[in-house]
This record gives sequence, structure tokens and C-alpha cells, in this order.
Amino acid sequence: MKNIFLLGATGSIGRQVLSVIRGRPDFKVKALTFYRNIDLGRRIIYEFQPEYVAVGSYDDMMILQAEFPDIVFGHGKDGLINAATYSDDSGYLINAVVGSAGLKPTIAAIKKGRDILLANKETLVMAGEIVIDLVRKYKVKLLPVDSEHSAVFQCLKAGDINAVKRIILTASGGALRNLSRDELKNVTLDDALRHPNWKMGAKITIDSATMANKGLEVIEAHHLFGIDYDRIDTLLHPESIVHSIVEFRDKSSIAQMALPDMRIPIQYALFYPDRSESDLPQLHLESFHSLHFSAMNFERYPLLQIAYQVGKKKGIMPAVYNAANEAAVQLFLKSKISFLEIEAIVASVVNEIKNIDNPTLDDILAVDQRVKDKILL
Amino acid sequence: MKNIFLLGATGSIGRQVLSVIRGRPDFKVKALTFYRNIDLGRRIIYEFQPEYVAVGSYDDMMILQAEFPDIVFGHGKDGLINAATYSDDSGYLINAVVGSAGLKPTIAAIKKGRDILLANKETLVMAGEIVIDLVRKYKVKLLPVDSEHSAVFQCLKAGDINAVKRIILTASGGALRNLSRDELKNVTLDDALRHPNWKMGAKITIDSATMANKGLEVIEAHHLFGIDYDRIDTLLHPESIVHSIVEFRDKSSIAQMALPDMRIPIQYALFYPDRSESDLPQLHLESFHSLHFSAMNFERYPLLQIAYQVGKKKGIMPAVYNAANEAAVQLFLKSKISFLEIEAIVASVVNEIKNIDNPTLDDILAVDQRVKDKILL
Repeated sequence: MKNIFLLGATGSIGRQVLSVIRGRPDFKVKALTFYRNIDLGRRIIYEFQPEYVAVGSYDDMMILQAEFPDIVFGHGKDGLINAATYSDDSGYLINAVVGSAGLKPTIAAIKKGRDILLANKETLVMAGEIVIDLVRKYKVKLLPVDSEHSAVFQCLKAGDINAVKRIILTASGGALRNLSRDELKNVTLDDALRHPNWKMGAKITIDSATMANKGLEVIEAHHLFGIDYDRIDTLLHPESIVHSIVEFRDKSSIAQMALPDMRIPIQYALFYPDRSESDLPQLHLESFHSLHFSAMNFERYPLLQIAYQVGKKKGIMPAVYNAANEAAVQLFLKSKISFLEIEAIVASVVNEIKNIDNPTLDDILAVDQRVKDKILL
Repeated sequence: MKNIFLLGATGSIGRQVLSVIRGRPDFKVKALTFYRNIDLGRRIIYEFQPEYVAVGSYDDMMILQAEFPDIVFGHGKDGLINAATYSDDSGYLINAVVGSAGLKPTIAAIKKGRDILLANKETLVMAGEIVIDLVRKYKVKLLPVDSEHSAVFQCLKAGDINAVKRIILTASGGALRNLSRDELKNVTLDDALRHPNWKMGAKITIDSATMANKGLEVIEAHHLFGIDYDRIDTLLHPESIVHSIVEFRDKSSIAQMALPDMRIPIQYALFYPDRSESDLPQLHLESFHSLHFSAMNFERYPLLQIAYQVGKKKGIMPAVYNAANEAAVQLFLKSKISFLEIEAIVASVVNEIKNIDNPTLDDILAVDQRVKDKILL
């Protein structure tokens, strides 16, 4: 029996986590959180019977508390941390919160000795050094849920990390991949939300279109696998079948392939090191008559190049990049800026802010807030 | 330091084995054999300074003995076995002999406790049950050298064999893949020897064109990985970049990719479990704009279908298939039969011969000889 502490239960990843463990008595959802989708949240509570639930607002908490008197409720940022650290039982924290709000609960759960299934990219992007140090100190497992990192993790079973020449993260190119830079000037929100292969949340879909998502993944891979940026590459692969590739120094490459369905890497992480039977859809390469690959184009996708730059600078710069992008995407999702202004905002903020070497967690959280306020207020 | 006992040193695989260990002081060629390429054999002896050498004929042996008085020489079938079992030092038997002549030396080396790098398909095709039993009994390692089996072996690192749903061996389709059955009637020897991706010996190049090679590989994979025929599939992949795929029951597939260069799987086997740096050519997927896949066509390639049938029948039938094919290809290489007659001969011989359950090694070797005599004499 594995206990699950699930942050972000009503989001895209959260729902898919629940669909994987549905009907599997070897998992017990001890605690869960969601932000404000109270209708779906209520149905999830009924079905999975958690002991602790946290929601975004005090008002929603009071409504649900009246409906479920036997469950302990919390709300807001403390609620997230309480869910991550609920009870003294061992288990997995599954952090599927979007954005920087995911950082503190992950750290709290690690300090509680809980293993981490990481779907929240920001945790490692903002505070990779701090988080990896804590993972080592508290000897917890840190398993990737992202399809690309799950792919790398699986491929790395076929050789020692010291024998790796390059990690190659594949990228579909996102919703706007067939448009030139010039044509990007006039794209609408709807255009940018139409991802060709994956059905995901709005933020990550926009990040796929700008390639900021791949930038965050490059930084995440650096920390997760302890590998230099010079040995992390990206490759355009429009079909999203090959999820990543590990190239070994003996000139042999190992790739993981699957249909683009997040439940596959989620299930891998949940059952790791076992591979459990599943009724998820099966890749039949016979019916994919061809898989295409082409070199990444940094001029077409400047946010990816900036991600490498901030990653190499370390300190607070990856957090600055992430915060600027998060805020700019928020403005774009509210139709307050154009698509290309996302890039312009991130590029300008990253240039303005002075780095801090070996930042504390407070330094990182402070700059995250400062950058977002500057862009959003 | 690893001692190498190399059978078939002047053949395609043998030469590539030598090119991989050239300049690597961690390998010592203790014994080697070659059949009759005395010019190349002489240069190899000079360079690698083996202690024992066996050649095909008594006359060639006497010529070389006079030139190299400090080396012990042998010849013929006994010479092969003496090379495989030479000295009491531990080390690797690399069996790169083509055809059924490879079987007895492999068995002798296993009984000597020597680890086996297997490039000779016939060993497992003819006597899979017997050889695998001996490998277990004498606790030796059996490492594949064939690119497809090496690929499977590498991919299996990413999951337990019990979690495997299918092993998928890829096939380029061979030299004549663009021809219909009807067009195959008039192909010449030269046409059939023109393999699009691999530079290999004549026998295996013809076997690629008839797909008998993939049939032998299916039977080999069955024994090597202990997996049912129903879980071994083949897939057409004209570029020969993805060398095989392991599909796990959790719907995740792991593939091994590399340029089509036999030195890559040879080096993997030689250094296993390490992955040593190499200056072999590097796959750049960026420059392979697309990889193509399509379902195998048993009607186009009947020898593959027959391989599954004889594999499932077990007993002496895989050896009958192999012997009939070996003899028929020999006739085709001497321009004595047409390309399609290879298939006709194999199909008819396989239908004629009565199976023997649980055959002895003598049963297998006897039927091998009987089938070849019948076809060749």
C-alpha cells in the first residue's frame, strides 16, 4: 500500500494521477488539494475519501467542511504545506501544482522524509541546488512525472550516467510550430492554445508554443540528472512519440517511445521500479508511417536559448526567468499582451535583474514575487 | 585484461571485432581462426600475435607454421574447437563463424567456462535448448553481438523481462525490398547482394533479402531472452537506425538507435557492462529527417513466416530450416538456382522432414548434414 499526498488534484496532471490509481487498491489518497474547482473537487473527495483536503479560499473550505464533517480541511498556502506533510505515514508527494506555489510544499515533504513524484517543474527550476541537496540529505526518492524526464530516467537504466554523452529532450514545436516569426505577431490566444499532440493545462500549452516549456525542462533535467547544460540538447520531433533520447559515449542511443499520454509516465513513476500492466493506449509504430526529427532553432524559439543562459548563470536567474514567464503568460491568457510580448518581457526582465550567488530559499521566493509584481501590477 | 578467442577472424564480423580492440591494451587475442583468406590472416597474425591459430586446410596450416614457428597451429573442425578451448585462461569466445560449423566450438567453450559473445546465429537456432541449458549449468555469460539482439539486450535494462509485452526486431527489408514477388523472379545475384544499409558477408546479405535472416534472429531471440514466439514481432524500418524495440506492458517502449555499424554492438558486448568511449560514427537524428516504419508482410517474405513455424515446432525443425536455407543460399551464390528457388527449397524440405522431440546434439548435427547433402549433392 502506497499513500498518496496529491497537490493539484483537479488540474490536468492531478486528474490523470487519479485516473491511474482508480480501482488500484494498492494506493490510498491520504491528502489532496485543489484550488477552486469545487464541483470536480467534491466528486474527487467522494470517490477517493482522503483524510485531509486543502483548497484555495477560506470560503470554499467552509462550504466543503459542512459537507464532509469527518475530513480535516485547510486552505491557502498553509493548506498546501499541510497536505504535503499530513500524517506521519510514509508515501509519495505528487506535486502537480502549476507554478512557483509548488516549491515550498515539496521542500516540506522532503523534510518529512516523503518520496517525491515531481510534476511541478518550478520546484527544480527555481531552487534546483537547494532541493537536490535536501533530497540527498533526507535520502528521499525524486521521480520525474514529466514525459521527457520520465523518458530520460528510463533510458538511463541502460547505462551509467558517467557514460552519457548527451541527453536529448524532444519537443513537438507546440501549437504555432508552422508559423514564421513574422506570422507570430498576430496569433490569438485560441491559436496558441491548440496543441497538436497533448491535451494539457493553458499555462503549459502556451509554454510549449514559446518553447519556454522546453527551457524549463532543460533546467529541470540539469538538476534531476546532475548533468551539464552542454550535454543537454533539444530536438524537434512533431509527432511526440519519442519522448527523449539518451546518447551514450559508445555511440549507442536509447530512446523511450509511447503515445503522447501523460498517464504513461505517471503510472511509471507510481509503480517504479515495477512496470505494471495497464490498459492505456498502445503505440503501434506500424501505424506511424514516419517519425520526423529536425534540429532545434534558437532564433525561432528565443525563450529556449534564454533558458540555457539563465541555467548556466545559476543563482536566482532561473527563478527570475520562470517568474517573468509565468507573469507574462498570465497577461497573455488574459489577452492583455500579444504572443510575442511574452518573449520580450522575459528577455527584458532577465537582463535587468542582478544575480545573487548561492541564494537562500527566501532570496528565491522574494525575487519570484518581485518579478511578478513588477510585470502584473 | 580480457582474453579473446576469435573464430572467423577474416570475415566481416571478425575484422570488425579486431578493429574495435585494435589499440586497446585491455584485450589480448589468445587464439584465432580463419578459413582460407591466408593473406589477410597473415597480416592479422603479425598484428595481434595470437598463441594459437587454426585455419581451414592442412596445407595452409603448414605454410603458416613455417612462417610463424612460435605459434601453435591447427586446422579443420578440430582446429576450431581447439581455438575455442585453447589454454586455461578465462576470457571471451567470439564466435563469428558463419553457418552450422559454429555450433560445436561454442559448446566446447561453454563447457570450458568461457563467456560467449555470439555472432554465430546458427548456434542458438540449431540447438537453442541445449546451448541455453549449458550456459546455465556452466554459469557463463552469453552476450549478443548481432545488432538487433544487442539492441534488445540494452533495452531490457529498462525493465524486467516479466514486464515485456513484445520484442520488436526491426528489418530493413534487404536489397530487394522495393520489388514485388513477381519482380523477384528475375533478380540476379548482384541485385541480391546490394544491401542498402549494411556491408556484410554474402550469406547474410542474401538472408536479408529473403528475410530468412530475420527468421533466424526471431528464433535466436526466443532462446536468448527466453520469450515466447507470440511475443516476438518484426517491423520494417528501411533506415536501420532503430535496431530493435522492447515494448513493456505499461505501454512504454524502449528502443536502441545507432548508425548501422556493427562495431557499435561489438564494442558494447566487449566492454559490457561498461560503455566505453569510442570514435565510431555518431548518429545525428537531426540529419535523419524521418524514420519510417511499416508492418511486416509475411506474404512478401514467406521464409520469415516459416521461421516462426519451425521455431514453434522446436525439436530438429529449426536446424532443418537453417540447413535447407544455408544450402539453398550456397546454390544461389553459385548461380545454380534462382532467387525464388531459395524459398521453394526451404519450404519443401521443412515439409518433408519428420520432427524429433528433444533431439540430442548428434540428432541435430546429423539432420543438418543430411539436409545439406540432399540439397547440394
